[in-house]
Amino acid sequence: MTTKSNPGNFFEDFKHGQQIVHATPRTVTEADTALNIALTGSRYALFSADSFAQNCGLPGAPIDPLLVFHTVFGKTVPDISLNAVANLGYAEGRFLAPVYPGDTLNAISEVIGLKQNSNGKTGVVTVRTDGFNQDGELVLSYVRWVMVNKRDANAPVADAPPITPKPVVATPDLVLPPGLDFSGYDFALAGSPHAFEDYAVGEKIDHVDGMTVEEAEHQLATRLYQNTAKVHFDALAQKESRFGKRLIYGGVTISLARALAFNGLANAQLMLAINGGRHVNPLFAGDTLYAWSEVLAAEDLGDVGALRLRLVAVKNRSATDFPFKNEAGEYDPSVVLDFDYWAAIPKR
Amino acid sequence: MTTKSNPGNFFEDFKHGQQIVHATPRTVTEADTALNIALTGSRYALFSADSFAQNCGLPGAPIDPLLVFHTVFGKTVPDISLNAVANLGYAEGRFLAPVYPGDTLNAISEVIGLKQNSNGKTGVVTVRTDGFNQDGELVLSYVRWVMVNKRDANAPVADAPPITPKPVVATPDLVLPPGLDFSGYDFALAGSPHAFEDYAVGEKIDHVDGMTVEEAEHQLATRLYQNTAKVHFDALAQKESRFGKRLIYGGVTISLARALAFNGLANAQLMLAINGGRHVNPLFAGDTLYAWSEVLAAEDLGDVGALRLRLVAVKNRSATDFPFKNEAGEYDPSVVLDFDYWAAIPKR
Amino acid sequence: MTTKSNPGNFFEDFKHGQQIVHATPRTVTEADTALNIALTGSRYALFSADSFAQNCGLPGAPIDPLLVFHTVFGKTVPDISLNAVANLGYAEGRFLAPVYPGDTLNAISEVIGLKQNSNGKTGVVTVRTDGFNQDGELVLSYVRWVMVNKRDANAPVADAPPITPKPVVATPDLVLPPGLDFSGYDFALAGSPHAFEDYAVGEKIDHVDGMTVEEAEHQLATRLYQNTAKVHFDALAQKESRFGKRLIYGGVTISLARALAFNGLANAQLMLAINGGRHVNPLFAGDTLYAWSEVLAAEDLGDVGALRLRLVAVKNRSATDFPFKNEAGEYDPSVVLDFDYWAAIPKR
Repeated sequence: MTTKSNPGNFFEDFKHGQQIVHATPRTVTEADTALNIALTGSRYALFSADSFAQNCGLPGAPIDPLLVFHTVFGKTVPDISLNAVANLGYAEGRFLAPVYPGDTLNAISEVIGLKQNSNGKTGVVTVRTDGFNQDGELVLSYVRWVMVNKRDANAPVADAPPITPKPVVATPDLVLPPGLDFSGYDFALAGSPHAFEDYAVGEKIDHVDGMTVEEAEHQLATRLYQNTAKVHFDALAQKESRFGKRLIYGGVTISLARALAFNGLANAQLMLAINGGRHVNPLFAGDTLYAWSEVLAAEDLGDVGALRLRLVAVKNRSATDFPFKNEAGEYDPSVVLDFDYWAAIPKR
Repeated sequence: MTTKSNPGNFFEDFKHGQQIVHATPRTVTEADTALNIALTGSRYALFSADSFAQNCGLPGAPIDPLLVFHTVFGKTVPDISLNAVANLGYAEGRFLAPVYPGDTLNAISEVIGLKQNSNGKTGVVTVRTDGFNQDGELVLSYVRWVMVNKRDANAPVADAPPITPKPVVATPDLVLPPGLDFSGYDFALAGSPHAFEDYAVGEKIDHVDGMTVEEAEHQLATRLYQNTAKVHFDALAQKESRFGKRLIYGGVTISLARALAFNGLANAQLMLAINGGRHVNPLFAGDTLYAWSEVLAAEDLGDVGALRLRLVAVKNRSATDFPFKNEAGEYDPSVVLDFDYWAAIPKR
Repeated sequence: MTTKSNPGNFFEDFKHGQQIVHATPRTVTEADTALNIALTGSRYALFSADSFAQNCGLPGAPIDPLLVFHTVFGKTVPDISLNAVANLGYAEGRFLAPVYPGDTLNAISEVIGLKQNSNGKTGVVTVRTDGFNQDGELVLSYVRWVMVNKRDANAPVADAPPITPKPVVATPDLVLPPGLDFSGYDFALAGSPHAFEDYAVGEKIDHVDGMTVEEAEHQLATRLYQNTAKVHFDALAQKESRFGKRLIYGGVTISLARALAFNGLANAQLMLAINGGRHVNPLFAGDTLYAWSEVLAAEDLGDVGALRLRLVAVKNRSATDFPFKNEAGEYDPSVVLDFDYWAAIPKR
């Protein structure tokens, strides 16, 4: 029996400079917005109400940038990370054009780095992934690195160390949606009186609320993104894994934490860039997620402000005391996500 | 660290006559209709099929009035009931204009009553909440009272007892959607031959079917309504609560019971008013819900009939024998919902 | 108390030649497509992306034919199978016109066979069900037979044995959507390089991936189809049943298996006919589903190819060794679904 199934690429299958066209373009619609709200509890007004978005100069409510990120990311999984050992991180993520209901997303990745690990059994693949809409317009670009198994430990590989990703997207590289105008911004409808000027670098915000995650919820979300990573779906196979159970896709964690962050950052609505993200501990169904944020930088972009924010998600304990790292620089075991991004926020 | 998070209002924070503009307007779409069906199993034809609605004189299938109610209600939670001890009830609910996919809902409440409890630790807040569409048209208005904690038991409060809500919305105050015309109503497609004339005051109907509720389901629904009450989502915090687990939002119970009521009331499709509703026992994930109805009144509105219906939801036992109250007037422990509403129904 | 609830039809209630107009027409929308993806993980490009469908000559992404099947089937449940003992199978299923978002589906069945079982307590009802869109156009037709309880074992019945369904839909009876044109088909975006010519009759394909099913997931799906069969929803009543728990609706199994089949059959996207389907063992929440396919026939339809495929879903074990039947012709206990269908696939 020949097989036409895709077993996924192993480390030795990747070539430096290789371009990978990922499968299954997807038309995102109002239904994705509703499902995103149902799955995360997001309350950011710009993505919830056409009238609010129109009052901000946009044609209607765009698709939440994180949903765009997860959708594009999901497409890459069958080609990049089906045989991944660990999702090491991402960086240089920029949202370059807004995505509206009816737009169709597809994704292309380029292999920009290959580094075999000293054990000979795994290697780190670095890719730049570009997400496009149906007009071929680039809507999202980011760099990701992931540790992938070798099929054959003896297979030769040509290492091609990646260009080190920049630690932060420079503010001149931040792109605002065409038409965005916060001059008539309605702070009451948005849910917070706090404008750009009210946030101080170094300020930490406890987002208070907690959210317990169920298996059905993270599976629904991860399937919505057409992400096929087995660790999220196959409880039988996961019984043999290190954790003995299904893992929650890191993108679900990001979106849940970002939804919790509404309580304190309601006006920092519009994610412009992902400077970096690391999933530092696993999240499982039954865990309760809390979140806190720190203002890392504040840049005046002219008509709007931009906050650089660290979003930290913790599990099974409150975030009131901002758990993060110990003196040795090791993450607290409760921390599951360390996420660094830029968001636009109205000025007063 | 300053906090920009919203801890919710405590009893002493409310002022009589205070107007509260609630956050996060929401554009409801066809996706809400589909999710409402997926979450409740609703089969009322008017809200399921554009062609059926058009045959009833409407431009297309409206959004289910209960979904409008939950959406508007959800907006009020962060301001009104984040520190609630108990959701005591609502009344004088009227659906004043139909909501169609694409409409954007927002909500404003006025504090119309404040009464501190004798223990000094809590008080009852009464609000009138109005829901509007993007044109500022009033689509829903209702009164709600809720018991809220005081932050400081010693804080002075100015009581302002509420106007006692009317026990029932008078039929002249019922508003039919513009264009509604049941003259060509298709009883076969609607799923029942029973018209207005077939229902007798005092008649009780067992809705037969049962529905077991899962954590993921009620969380999805409650997040879809952007309702943030912690008791529904935070299993960790709820471990310390009276019940030791998450509570299901009462609106989920109403919608599930109303979906079950299709079996016996398929033509009493169009909810016009909520006379009153009380959640008399908690519902938890794993519980199985059944429902029965009683015809409390029947009024001929001219072109259509209106039934005043009591909808009773019970848990973990059949509703065949109409469990309700004992001789002392106490609810049977199986009863979770006592809901009183008006619905339009075609005449023969 | 009179009852207006529908207890469902019993075997003696059916008459040969009887036409049954089923309730609750439903407008299917983009939200159904999104929910179908979230519930099954389907990645077939034709149903995921308007741009891909337009590149195949269609006006936009149609509704997945299986979703059409489940929606039409769901409407028949309250009339046909509420008192079913067993869903024995279906055949002669043909998709006759594509369904697009905004179309409204309704269903009519005709009783074409009645055969009481020798025990006198049950009988087999055979119906032909036709699904229509809002223009009265036939979009789907299939034959189904189901074992139904008698209300009264002594009630007389007039047997009317059914015409034996054809074992396979003949290729001249396969209907392609108007406009379908695979001449510019994008194999990379579709996710597989394998065209019609690459598949050999007798070839078996292991679809590799597994999917664990949760109660909330199958309940959401089955309610989305407005299927009311109690065995899927009422855990309390099911405690008294043979299995002691809720059963997963067979249509959920079909859609999950078909979504898994993407991995190996990504281009056999367009289901044209259901030759037959049998649910040979029950599936429960917590079970993990795997799938394999066998190419039963390959027919050149001119501009496109058609593959006749057997889709076998197995539970709680891998499908790598193609579990099916033993030498006595009995299904392996792991097999839950034996499904036989035609799908269109592009030629090279």
